[in-house]
Amino acid sequence: MAKIIYVAIGNEILIGKTINTNEGFIGAQLTSAGIPLETSITIKDDKEIIIKTLENCWKHYDVVIVSGGLGPTHDDVTKYAIADFFKKELIFDSSAWVNIQQMYEVKDLPIPEIVKTQAEIPQGFTPLPNKKGTAPGLYYSENDKHFFALPGVPSEMKGMFVEHVIPILQKNFPANPIFQKTIRTIGIPESILYTKTIGVQETSITKIAFLPKSGMVDIRVYGTSEQEVEKIIHKFLKIIPSQNIYGFGEDSIEKVFHRKMMSSGKTVSAAESCTGGLIQSLITNNAGSSEYFLGGVVSYSNEAKMKLLGVGRATLDTFGAVSKETVREMVLGVQKLLGSDYAIAVSGIAGPDGGTEDKPIGLVYIGTFGNSGLVITKNNFSGPRIEVKTKTALTALHQLDINR
Amino acid sequence: MAKIIYVAIGNEILIGKTINTNEGFIGAQLTSAGIPLETSITIKDDKEIIIKTLENCWKHYDVVIVSGGLGPTHDDVTKYAIADFFKKELIFDSSAWVNIQQMYEVKDLPIPEIVKTQAEIPQGFTPLPNKKGTAPGLYYSENDKHFFALPGVPSEMKGMFVEHVIPILQKNFPANPIFQKTIRTIGIPESILYTKTIGVQETSITKIAFLPKSGMVDIRVYGTSEQEVEKIIHKFLKIIPSQNIYGFGEDSIEKVFHRKMMSSGKTVSAAESCTGGLIQSLITNNAGSSEYFLGGVVSYSNEAKMKLLGVGRATLDTFGAVSKETVREMVLGVQKLLGSDYAIAVSGIAGPDGGTEDKPIGLVYIGTFGNSGLVITKNNFSGPRIEVKTKTALTALHQLDINR
Repeated sequence: MAKIIYVAIGNEILIGKTINTNEGFIGAQLTSAGIPLETSITIKDDKEIIIKTLENCWKHYDVVIVSGGLGPTHDDVTKYAIADFFKKELIFDSSAWVNIQQMYEVKDLPIPEIVKTQAEIPQGFTPLPNKKGTAPGLYYSENDKHFFALPGVPSEMKGMFVEHVIPILQKNFPANPIFQKTIRTIGIPESILYTKTIGVQETSITKIAFLPKSGMVDIRVYGTSEQEVEKIIHKFLKIIPSQNIYGFGEDSIEKVFHRKMMSSGKTVSAAESCTGGLIQSLITNNAGSSEYFLGGVVSYSNEAKMKLLGVGRATLDTFGAVSKETVREMVLGVQKLLGSDYAIAVSGIAGPDGGTEDKPIGLVYIGTFGNSGLVITKNNFSGPRIEVKTKTALTALHQLDINR
Repeated sequence: MAKIIYVAIGNEILIGKTINTNEGFIGAQLTSAGIPLETSITIKDDKEIIIKTLENCWKHYDVVIVSGGLGPTHDDVTKYAIADFFKKELIFDSSAWVNIQQMYEVKDLPIPEIVKTQAEIPQGFTPLPNKKGTAPGLYYSENDKHFFALPGVPSEMKGMFVEHVIPILQKNFPANPIFQKTIRTIGIPESILYTKTIGVQETSITKIAFLPKSGMVDIRVYGTSEQEVEKIIHKFLKIIPSQNIYGFGEDSIEKVFHRKMMSSGKTVSAAESCTGGLIQSLITNNAGSSEYFLGGVVSYSNEAKMKLLGVGRATLDTFGAVSKETVREMVLGVQKLLGSDYAIAVSGIAGPDGGTEDKPIGLVYIGTFGNSGLVITKNNFSGPRIEVKTKTALTALHQLDINR
């Protein structure tokens, strides 16, 4: 089995200014391809350190994937370190140059002088075209070992990784597939889910992992036998209440919502208070959402609730903005305003201020008008402001009962 | 200067299921303390691999900080690997046990049998109390070298790191403070910014880094002399157009917007088409935004634009939804609807479909009514749907001219 290491080059990661999301992307891609990542390392933008790391990696690994430091500025030293380590001259590569010229043509900009150096690559290396930027990737192979250098900017790296790195590795190494399946749940705390399912056990070749995140818990089952994985998944599905399962694998609440709405033939609108637009932003992250999403309102102030949604002043005075009664009028108000089949409304206290003993921070009423009519739930979400917003938005999208 | 390595232990990170946010936290903490991180590595939950990695790290670094795999279940092998590597027996530690008992008392839960093993630590090691979980941290020192093991769960690790790791390191290593200042820009591509400022050069003790992200570029200047850092920052500020600078250091566009709005005494509302609620969600991520943000509309459909904002049917028919004219009516419409002082409106084509030759994907009109009246800009943003949404939202918040 191929031993693969990913080397991120970037002071920004080490000083905590940039989260290394490339690691997760590369890890997930390699896992899906059946040639999983063995190790990942982050080092400084320092030529001597890069060279020393390359020496070490090239000795102990079959595949070395480097990212970062390929740009045109003076602090981009990766290419020079690579050329030094592999003892190659930098030569002007005309195919890389054509690609750079095309990038600037599309943008209708003159090419800065400095960008020309990006067409220089170490002799014997293959440039990997970059569709999103000017720095080409680099590929080199020797004695059944494979070396890649990619830009650090995620949007540039991702396409190149999928288009060039994965196919080269798949051609050279047999896949060793790990089957995995994930059940995605919302609304049950991890400890309760764990206790409920304590009878479902791992086997010698099948592992179970509980992964909690923002009020949701994933249960991931993985191993070398697809049949065994399915058997364990089946046991979980018999125990976990179906209303707490929002999807499987790569499903997100937004995507599941989108899929159901697309096939329902219905329209939806939303009125948001404490989420401040997040619900609608999540809906519209889905390409094609304009087919069913008509629009909505962010009724942050009481004035906006009355004026745009027709919430009664008496309702607000008697029960408050954060109440079942107000949310009821918000749902029905926005449904009428936009003329949608379905509607979603939320009102709550996101914090960090504004909580009282009666109405603590995290108290959120979620109203949905769906296939089975009006449903209003009272929720208590924990966490800081943005987490309360996120939990509210996801719970609301999950709560809407969509006709199928 | 102390050489410090952070070792994350976790298959979940390597297969891309969990983003390694601990790396950034630890990196930022150590940088602030003046004892920056040299290297970070992620390895598998595998006892042999952990031992081999410890051998290597203990030889080449002064400080080794390990996280992950300290839990009570069978796949938590870190403690056993540490005991093997350092050739120490595991012994029952009563102070660790007291801490675990307290955790369960607070939660009013019986202690599961399996948790008792968590009070066993390698002989000669010091347990570091964990306020958020049952696994104690571990500390060991020998020949001026320092070893730490911490839980992988970020909420548990963070407190222990600040409370125990940082003080021990500060006592043992002189801080070598790095001064840094970052200029944050929007609206100029990296290569153009670089070319414009090519005359501003690094010195032997002061470094400059260009950090592009989603249409924005940070320029970070850092070094051991605060005065030199300031001198270089000053040179940049003389060259970069001030309208392209949105802040410094930890400023984000949302935070700067919030700060300006709070001190302006004005109110604002928003009407969003292609951003689908994102602008308002960003505004309301700021605690206290209810003081100036009245609310707004997500006018995703043409119907919503007409009905809620009073955009004329003739305007939509003649110029289309994505046009200067429509955005003009949207800004003025939402301003009137909510009765706000300022207003923001956007309409564009986020993609991946819906682009034409005349109106390609990424074309976005941004209208703002601010201190100096109505401004409408035509923008061409690159990238996939969510990136176009993000660039639009941030550009819109930056574009609003706020009275100070």
